[in-house]
Amino acid sequence: MIGIIGGGQLAKMMAQEARKLGFGIAVLDPQEKCPVCGLADVKITGSFMDGEKIRNLAEISDVLTYDIEHINVEVLKELEEEGYPVYPSPKILEIIQDKLVQMETMKKAGVPIPKFIRADRDELTEKAIEFGVPLVQKTRRGGYDGKGVAVIRTEKELDKLLPTDSMLQEFVEIEKEIAVMVARDQDGNIEVYPVVEMVFNEANILDFLVAPARIDEDIAREAQDIAVKVVEALDGVGIFGIEMFLSKDGTVLLNEVAPRPHNSGHYTIEACMTSQFEQHIRAITGLPLGNSELLVPAVMFNVLGEGYGRPKVLGMKEALRYPGVYVHIYGKPVVRPLRKMGHVTVVNKDLGKALEVAQKVKRIIKVVGDDP
Amino acid sequence: MIGIIGGGQLAKMMAQEARKLGFGIAVLDPQEKCPVCGLADVKITGSFMDGEKIRNLAEISDVLTYDIEHINVEVLKELEEEGYPVYPSPKILEIIQDKLVQMETMKKAGVPIPKFIRADRDELTEKAIEFGVPLVQKTRRGGYDGKGVAVIRTEKELDKLLPTDSMLQEFVEIEKEIAVMVARDQDGNIEVYPVVEMVFNEANILDFLVAPARIDEDIAREAQDIAVKVVEALDGVGIFGIEMFLSKDGTVLLNEVAPRPHNSGHYTIEACMTSQFEQHIRAITGLPLGNSELLVPAVMFNVLGEGYGRPKVLGMKEALRYPGVYVHIYGKPVVRPLRKMGHVTVVNKDLGKALEVAQKVKRIIKVVGDDP
Repeated sequence: MIGIIGGGQLAKMMAQEARKLGFGIAVLDPQEKCPVCGLADVKITGSFMDGEKIRNLAEISDVLTYDIEHINVEVLKELEEEGYPVYPSPKILEIIQDKLVQMETMKKAGVPIPKFIRADRDELTEKAIEFGVPLVQKTRRGGYDGKGVAVIRTEKELDKLLPTDSMLQEFVEIEKEIAVMVARDQDGNIEVYPVVEMVFNEANILDFLVAPARIDEDIAREAQDIAVKVVEALDGVGIFGIEMFLSKDGTVLLNEVAPRPHNSGHYTIEACMTSQFEQHIRAITGLPLGNSELLVPAVMFNVLGEGYGRPKVLGMKEALRYPGVYVHIYGKPVVRPLRKMGHVTVVNKDLGKALEVAQKVKRIIKVVGDDP
Repeated sequence: MIGIIGGGQLAKMMAQEARKLGFGIAVLDPQEKCPVCGLADVKITGSFMDGEKIRNLAEISDVLTYDIEHINVEVLKELEEEGYPVYPSPKILEIIQDKLVQMETMKKAGVPIPKFIRADRDELTEKAIEFGVPLVQKTRRGGYDGKGVAVIRTEKELDKLLPTDSMLQEFVEIEKEIAVMVARDQDGNIEVYPVVEMVFNEANILDFLVAPARIDEDIAREAQDIAVKVVEALDGVGIFGIEMFLSKDGTVLLNEVAPRPHNSGHYTIEACMTSQFEQHIRAITGLPLGNSELLVPAVMFNVLGEGYGRPKVLGMKEALRYPGVYVHIYGKPVVRPLRKMGHVTVVNKDLGKALEVAQKVKRIIKVVGDDP
């Protein structure tokens, strides 16, 4: 039995691979009806912070993992010390949860990162002036999907600083945002996925994920090397999403580490020999890793919720008329605007054609709420 | 909500695709713990023959389908007449369930089939002598996986005739057994999969399924045409497995029709653009079909149970060390000798290498019972 803390779409896709390999699934999630609930053998309803519920999950599971980072690390550390296998290790989670500690750890490991300093809440403005604008503020804890980040372009914008313990990072002129998934097993063997490229829209929301990234081979190799270095520095077991910047001057810099399957790795389900989810399940259960080779180029986009209420999928029939289109609807019980309700992967031997189809299908398929 | 009668491995793999597309799953199965039970939103425990339970399933489902042929057709016909969508139509099931009617229907449709005659229980011997040996007896009802079939080579073997209403078929000298999966949607659009080849061992148990079949292109096209003709003759909606013989004199003849996902189509999960299971779900829910193109050659074998008791999977770790190996364990609660407990698909750009790896992995991976 594999115990998963968090019952969202990442857990759902993990569970599907785990079931294929014959494993049972137990899940802890606060929602009565979560995407993975219909696939779980055992459902425990409770908060990700509830130590007792996490212990209940551990007792019925052979191994614990998670699909979300904001969970009770203390209890997981206790469990790990008591001998319960928890992958990736809660020690990694502790590092990742605090962006300052994450960057300090990476700096120590020799990973190229943007310049940064620590700036506690009571000294934010002084530190910002000292560090110099333009800069990017990242709150140490709690940020995700662009939350907890402020961009300060000039000293006039210093009043936009978020009033919380933070780190301040140099503002990098970005050519492209790229990412690499890395899997590492319990013996330290590694499988690296190709470099992918994230294309954002004006509102800084991911528009398309393009695999492979349209970058030079040398830069791709450099990004893969950095991603491996990150996971090795963390002594990570499982799958990791490593987000990086390719700066305008051609440097690759680490942006952020996700110690779990990642949105930028969804394309692996259809486009790679082994999906990020199967790879994760293999790693945490002590099985050897699969081949991470890209079989066919792919473009992925998220299907974001529109409106509120119970979800209704529109355009499925029209969308599926295009060849190479794979629709994943997560089965979340309610819609909220911009909530990730599903994703679509388009594969095509010709990456340009995949992108063309993805652009068309993105305008067609919608998940809208029934509450007007 | 998709209602599935039968909760075995075929239903499990259907359910996984259905969930991906965002559909709910209800299942009727006599076992408390069936492979699909952990994935279903609603589980009804009852016999496949229990009309009331089938009606209960229909009431909570938007469409009914099945993963097994020996079910209560009468109730399904009533439901269809009352306007409940049932795919494939129970009328097809009625034809398929009786091998004599199946062959008569195919003959009428102009599908090439082995010569056959009807032989009722009380006239078996006379009919067999009249028809001439060697011959193959097939019982009209209840046969599967080689059961309900007797091969009579000489008149001396006439005492081996199974004492039940049957059809007698000419004994075809077989070069290869081949199969084609065909999907047909509610508008009559068709997607045909490549021809695959079934390699049997001495005990007449499927050893390996080889995709694509190692046959001439002309013969492959002929087999695909026959498969399409069969499904059109049945006015089928859903996925169909069409088993055929390639005789020693180069003729392609229909052997048997399965109105559901089929063992010989498991390779499509990893090797084709759209799996047989996704194709079935698309067809029965009114969605357009996907592309059935083969992306990479594949070899599949069934993992058959050894012994009795609760299943234990052996050799998984060693098996997964080989590249391109996909293991599917069905999650059946108990093992029986020769019971299908899972399957393995091996993909490789070089079909010969896929076969080599499959042969190795087949010796490694086992599902054994814990009851000595």
